[in-house]
Amino acid sequence: MKANAEIIAVGSELLLGQIANTNAQFLSKQLAELGVNVYYHTVVGDNTTRLQKTIEIARSRSDLIIFTGGLGPTKDDVTKETIAHMFNRTLSLHQQSMKQIEDYFQKTKRKMSENNRKQAFVISDSYVLPNDHGMAPGMAFQHEGKIWMLLPGPPKEMKPMFLNYGIPYLKDQLGANDTITSRVLRFFGIGESQLETEIEDLIDKQSNPTIAPLAKDGEVTLRITAKHHDQKQAEQLLDQMEDYILARVGQYFYGYDETSLPEQILRRLQAIQFTIASAESLTGGLFLQLLTNISGASQVVKGGVVSYTNEVKQQMLHVKKETLQKYGAVSRQCAKEMAENVRTLIGSDIGISFTGVAGPEPLENQSVGTVFVGIATKEKTNVYELHLAGSRDSIRKRTVNYGCYHLMKMLDC
Amino acid sequence: MKANAEIIAVGSELLLGQIANTNAQFLSKQLAELGVNVYYHTVVGDNTTRLQKTIEIARSRSDLIIFTGGLGPTKDDVTKETIAHMFNRTLSLHQQSMKQIEDYFQKTKRKMSENNRKQAFVISDSYVLPNDHGMAPGMAFQHEGKIWMLLPGPPKEMKPMFLNYGIPYLKDQLGANDTITSRVLRFFGIGESQLETEIEDLIDKQSNPTIAPLAKDGEVTLRITAKHHDQKQAEQLLDQMEDYILARVGQYFYGYDETSLPEQILRRLQAIQFTIASAESLTGGLFLQLLTNISGASQVVKGGVVSYTNEVKQQMLHVKKETLQKYGAVSRQCAKEMAENVRTLIGSDIGISFTGVAGPEPLENQSVGTVFVGIATKEKTNVYELHLAGSRDSIRKRTVNYGCYHLMKMLDC
Repeated sequence: MKANAEIIAVGSELLLGQIANTNAQFLSKQLAELGVNVYYHTVVGDNTTRLQKTIEIARSRSDLIIFTGGLGPTKDDVTKETIAHMFNRTLSLHQQSMKQIEDYFQKTKRKMSENNRKQAFVISDSYVLPNDHGMAPGMAFQHEGKIWMLLPGPPKEMKPMFLNYGIPYLKDQLGANDTITSRVLRFFGIGESQLETEIEDLIDKQSNPTIAPLAKDGEVTLRITAKHHDQKQAEQLLDQMEDYILARVGQYFYGYDETSLPEQILRRLQAIQFTIASAESLTGGLFLQLLTNISGASQVVKGGVVSYTNEVKQQMLHVKKETLQKYGAVSRQCAKEMAENVRTLIGSDIGISFTGVAGPEPLENQSVGTVFVGIATKEKTNVYELHLAGSRDSIRKRTVNYGCYHLMKMLDC
Repeated sequence: MKANAEIIAVGSELLLGQIANTNAQFLSKQLAELGVNVYYHTVVGDNTTRLQKTIEIARSRSDLIIFTGGLGPTKDDVTKETIAHMFNRTLSLHQQSMKQIEDYFQKTKRKMSENNRKQAFVISDSYVLPNDHGMAPGMAFQHEGKIWMLLPGPPKEMKPMFLNYGIPYLKDQLGANDTITSRVLRFFGIGESQLETEIEDLIDKQSNPTIAPLAKDGEVTLRITAKHHDQKQAEQLLDQMEDYILARVGQYFYGYDETSLPEQILRRLQAIQFTIASAESLTGGLFLQLLTNISGASQVVKGGVVSYTNEVKQQMLHVKKETLQKYGAVSRQCAKEMAENVRTLIGSDIGISFTGVAGPEPLENQSVGTVFVGIATKEKTNVYELHLAGSRDSIRKRTVNYGCYHLMKMLDC
């Protein structure tokens, strides 16, 4: 089945400009990879009449219609009610979803209110898409030869539901198609324009695979995308292009797809069974927070100290008073002591430290963006001096990324 | 003139999911402030046939139609050509825009190509919106009693053009209008459906102001929006509705608009000149990271310890070995010692601790989502037991939010 798709987001918050329609972006990307053409996005408010009109239009021009939003417990939420009414279908209680909602309330020891029951009702004879991260189940069905799919609005519920249940359903209904396969190559330590210059001829000649660069927080990524009816052939096209690219800029490459630098570090340390401890000043806990947000962190992360004041640097990290007086907290010397001391105090294989000026004000006569990263192992301590641009938030993120990058290079040696 | 608006974004890159439609979000916010109802967003590709169909639909249902995108120099860019064709209008060279484009090329010492001339053509008899940040001018005109406005796609060109030229044009054409004023009330410690049950009658009766609930990471917000030709009267309507709402659920209210719980805490501690230190286990530094991401944190945050292992809890936080053996790390007793000890070790007014099971695996026979938050002051220590649902990431975020919430309640007493 060839499918021209339309994505309909239901929610007045979108029409008031409170949020952007990132759901449509996410679904469009996923549908492109399935080989489905997306021809329209529509946003309509929580209003039955206008939603009905929108559905009539979609029905006349699209083969696959995906809704996001309007499945919640409140009176505002009218998506499934409106569709059921228009298609003369009833809503029936889905026992499994009801049980999941009840379990949720039992677990969180909160009182379930009557309107939560509303969420467990689905359009009859539809395929139910379980919600593993919330209460409202999704659903999908065929009607008049078209596929209709209803997904919840919150991205953290919608995304895993679509990936885990929506895509398999669509693959099954749509049958074989040209597959679009893509791979993201991640680079650090090279600017976007420099990277583009290095592979300019590849970008100019691109057709299949295509190459799309993107820059963020000091990182550059290249998305390479291949189209082929045979998945294996598509993968081979990607392998070949990857080889071409890495022959030029391989020294800056650090990982694939969604792998972040902190995750890459965590996996490397896991593999070599090394533990780590951190002493964070300007980053205020960001480094460890990113590491510990990854499941499996406890094998690697022992702990750390956030030393936001000089007092805490002395008391908790035993940084020498003379060091702070003579060189200041934003200094090579202080970074060195912080990294070495946190390593011995906590008893880890590696100690890493971050001290610097996140802004908005300069500190100790050092300009905003001046940062020192210390990395101590049993054998040696390296300190890296950085001069970063950007907002407070961006400087903190780049600092952590640079720390991970230098640590990776040290582990490579 | 009363206007129901529709925003049409033209661009295949949106339908491929390469970018999100942030232009529609921006314009929606601006239009809401002008008192214009936005009823639809549409995204359509760079395709003349589908664009024509989209325009027909908009023509039949909206009074003000704003386009973004498709004004560029390439063959793909068809917005003004398609509209001119449909409305039997011609395109004519706009001398001032032509001169601006020529100046641009002269200034950047680049060679102008013939297709750049295309950008200087505008729909005849339209009001030209100058582009101060790029080449393609915008334009606006009335046709069949409706207002049509064409804006460029790149946000850095579109936004200033709309603010500086689009809004004055619309104000002039639409005449005096009601202003729309809104306010977001933020709640914590109450579920969306419970909150809605408490104020059900207010929601049922809503007209002016309207009430719109939204839930995220354990928080619920209510956006109340009032419409009035007099800004002061609109504010009074909001004040009155806020009073009604807070009389019911005031105990869960913590702040307005974009203020997060960590920011609210930071501002409160600043105001009373209190310092804070944290001992974080499952949150891995998230609490301090959020606090220190706010400028001004150094007056309040002294530092903290991330104790991801029992060893670090003993060494760095002096939690008693017997406590860990008898009750475990995920216990009321451990949370109490962590909070009290980090407070005295770092010498702050408040010590706050987080210990629990973020998942995915249970820990010490405690189920995923079991969390203890300790808050120690000079006078007393409180420990709060939580049972949270969701992913690892969500449990960590909710834990921090609950910590902030309970700290706020303690400071209130």
